[in-house]
Amino acid sequence: MLFDDTYFMREALRQAKLAFDAGEVPVGAIVVWGDKIIGRGHNQVEQLNDSTAHAEMIALTSAFNQLGAKYLPEATLYVTVEPCLMCCGAMYWSKLARIVYGAEDVKNGYRKTAGTNWPFHQKASLSSGVLADECAQLMKDFFAARR
Amino acid sequence: MLFDDTYFMREALRQAKLAFDAGEVPVGAIVVWGDKIIGRGHNQVEQLNDSTAHAEMIALTSAFNQLGAKYLPEATLYVTVEPCLMCCGAMYWSKLARIVYGAEDVKNGYRKTAGTNWPFHQKASLSSGVLADECAQLMKDFFAARR
Repeated sequence: MLFDDTYFMREALRQAKLAFDAGEVPVGAIVVWGDKIIGRGHNQVEQLNDSTAHAEMIALTSAFNQLGAKYLPEATLYVTVEPCLMCCGAMYWSKLARIVYGAEDVKNGYRKTAGTNWPFHQKASLSSGVLADECAQLMKDFFAARR
Repeated sequence: MLFDDTYFMREALRQAKLAFDAGEVPVGAIVVWGDKIIGRGHNQVEQLNDSTAHAEMIALTSAFNQLGAKYLPEATLYVTVEPCLMCCGAMYWSKLARIVYGAEDVKNGYRKTAGTNWPFHQKASLSSGVLADECAQLMKDFFAARR
């Protein structure tokens, strides 16, 4: 199958690499509706001087603009790293159908605060671990280069 | 004292009234550094067709732009209604020193998911109930008019 989770996570990884090349923590996200990518985003906290400019926030706003709709009830968001609480909240409001993330983030991931509580929309489903090694390696390379 | 919490919450209420007049759920927020308002925002979900365009997100981004800084470690955010999980996450990343909200929001407030967990920065402090009746009344008037 061409358009599977691995295919779309590779597209999210391309976004993460854009962040990496710009000196940003390398996280990338895309929003998919059917087989179509309707939003892309990479972390731009440094470039925009805005701590809320996470990959997922930018990908969601890009998808809203693309569709002219404020809800994305049939869409899937792919993100290379476990989302933080803010981004989970944004996905909740977007009414996303599905969230897929790659690598875990013990330090900043949503589970640190939410614990076993479900911060996404009650109808949403979650998958994780897709291309986890590649997603995690990009983060490791970034922080190793900074030290 | 002129510049107290009530003074600044009135400014946040002015923002909430802008949202009300635009047909938006009436929530307003401001960011204060010292005695100076460095960011303002009102809910613009409908106008921007973006479910993440909450008053707090807009006020924070406005403050980042005003200061040219991505952290607000000495700032206070005033918001008329208890923030949601997304907005708490944004405040966490902003490293805000203090959060003050007016009315409680049992349905969408952060405590619904976070429970007794602390979603703000570990150094941040929280106050609530400032002009709570006025903040809540504006919400009630809005939803009553919609029915």
